[in-house]
Amino acid sequence: MKDKILLAHGSGGKLAHELVERSFVKAFDNPLLAKLDDSAVFDFSGRLAFTTDSYVVSPIFFPGGDIGKLAVCGTVNDLAMSGAKPLYLSLSFIIEEGLPQSELSEIVVSVQKAAQEAGVEIVTGDTKVVHRGSADKLFVNTAGVGMISEGVDISGGNARPGDKVLLSGTIGDHGIAVLSQREGLSFSTQLESDCAPLWSLVAEMLSASPNIHCLRDPTRGGLATSLNELAKRSKVSIRIEEEKIPVREEVLAACEMLGFDPLYVANEGKLVAIVPDEDVDKILKAMRENRDGKDAVIIGEVRAEHPGRVVMKTCLGASRIVDMLAGDLLPRIC
Amino acid sequence: MKDKILLAHGSGGKLAHELVERSFVKAFDNPLLAKLDDSAVFDFSGRLAFTTDSYVVSPIFFPGGDIGKLAVCGTVNDLAMSGAKPLYLSLSFIIEEGLPQSELSEIVVSVQKAAQEAGVEIVTGDTKVVHRGSADKLFVNTAGVGMISEGVDISGGNARPGDKVLLSGTIGDHGIAVLSQREGLSFSTQLESDCAPLWSLVAEMLSASPNIHCLRDPTRGGLATSLNELAKRSKVSIRIEEEKIPVREEVLAACEMLGFDPLYVANEGKLVAIVPDEDVDKILKAMRENRDGKDAVIIGEVRAEHPGRVVMKTCLGASRIVDMLAGDLLPRIC
Repeated sequence: MKDKILLAHGSGGKLAHELVERSFVKAFDNPLLAKLDDSAVFDFSGRLAFTTDSYVVSPIFFPGGDIGKLAVCGTVNDLAMSGAKPLYLSLSFIIEEGLPQSELSEIVVSVQKAAQEAGVEIVTGDTKVVHRGSADKLFVNTAGVGMISEGVDISGGNARPGDKVLLSGTIGDHGIAVLSQREGLSFSTQLESDCAPLWSLVAEMLSASPNIHCLRDPTRGGLATSLNELAKRSKVSIRIEEEKIPVREEVLAACEMLGFDPLYVANEGKLVAIVPDEDVDKILKAMRENRDGKDAVIIGEVRAEHPGRVVMKTCLGASRIVDMLAGDLLPRIC
Repeated sequence: MKDKILLAHGSGGKLAHELVERSFVKAFDNPLLAKLDDSAVFDFSGRLAFTTDSYVVSPIFFPGGDIGKLAVCGTVNDLAMSGAKPLYLSLSFIIEEGLPQSELSEIVVSVQKAAQEAGVEIVTGDTKVVHRGSADKLFVNTAGVGMISEGVDISGGNARPGDKVLLSGTIGDHGIAVLSQREGLSFSTQLESDCAPLWSLVAEMLSASPNIHCLRDPTRGGLATSLNELAKRSKVSIRIEEEKIPVREEVLAACEMLGFDPLYVANEGKLVAIVPDEDVDKILKAMRENRDGKDAVIIGEVRAEHPGRVVMKTCLGASRIVDMLAGDLLPRIC
């Protein structure tokens, strides 16, 4: 049992302290965390963004990432979608008793790498352990704080008729990669999750023009659900063109086989942006120069009629209403 | 199944939006949350405290509280223990499929009430649902941000020889209340968890003297573990007197029956403070005037010899070393 996580690792006692000090504080090496006080304390002045997500993805390791990388990228991206430079994250584990310590260590390394890539520090955290059977291996929560520069005002309610809709790359990669790992599907080429921190992409878009109206990362519910949220909050309609939306062949094949619509499949390294028509060229250029936006395209535009509705011109030339996800396509995808 | 939480409530799609808009946004009614953007955005200037905890208490309802109240108080108290006025919380649910909607609603009401009492707002959140058997009813994570006034410097490393150790009231109430609910123990009087937000107590202590060295809320691992943490971080020893430590009769009886030491049993509405000798009287007076500190007492003092050690003078006059909690006394107590 020495190489397994025990209930006592979550007790707040000796084993818990050892785990925190030997494993977490060492990996996330920074002075704020090392104080091990009840809160991390730092000076801040400006416009602050604050967000959280819990991660329950199954399996916890998948092609292109794991629950640790996902927990960093997901929260970093929620900050970035508010136009905020991510600064600090909290990290909280709920562990099922019996999880191999080696798996937890691998996740911790992955969190550390993703945090470094995203330019954030893990400054506070928590560990709970529950009895075997009371959780499924590992759940992770991260919360994050970031800073929004002056002049940036990005919100789901800011889309205006005439705006253009941009998408940073292919859709559905994350959902299909996790699903294929879970169900043992295999493709002739290895499909990987697109899981990535998107702040550097957003920072370059904001340098090109601070006048970005909306940003969303289409995670659970996919592109279709994100566009519906934006249309509803901004009281506008969004018209997109199917043929403009990039989808990998493997994703398309898996979706056809399984009866999924890629518009509803989760992404973890893509964003949709709604920007004024006059700024679209320079923002698109900036996106294409970034690793995470090299396949960026204009997929549609914002209109005044039928507020709240998303309409897609299909490849066959017909128009269809694209609704929000109704049931649950793929549980535990993030 | 209409009155149960379904996987689709965590999908990010229609049912999830309905749950968030009809239940959460309504209950936690505030403009930051109502925007439903990926982050809550607000202005902040000063010294910021940031903390998180996940809550896995079982059962989720217990005498004196529930997992919702606990999730607010626990995080508010972590901020308060850094001397920070709690401002905003995030709230993240991991729900086991099949949880009655009525139970979730009850928890949401409880979160709302506790937040109001503590003077904080729930400004951002997340909901995940996992298959039946992959979690145990409900896990909750909260993260919080608060503001520290100028001149306040509270940290586990600040205890100095000659300082006095204060305790705000009886110990062990929370742990024994949860345990007795879980195991069906009953007492002639109803023992309740002490679960409470402690910022008003801390605020009044800071008004009496901003010169407080250390604060800790002795949750998991109990008073003994908190004192050990403080002794280790401050490189001092702490000497306490058993007869000074208030313990309710029911708690003492349950501990004797079960073979527990109340020093290791969790609290959720108590604090231990280490303060300079010259300020102890005014701080103690301020504590006793507050509802949550009316039973406050001096339980010991800080010494230079044997750094890292906690020693207790027992009721019989002997001295014994009080170590950190070794195993896990009571799993899933918070």
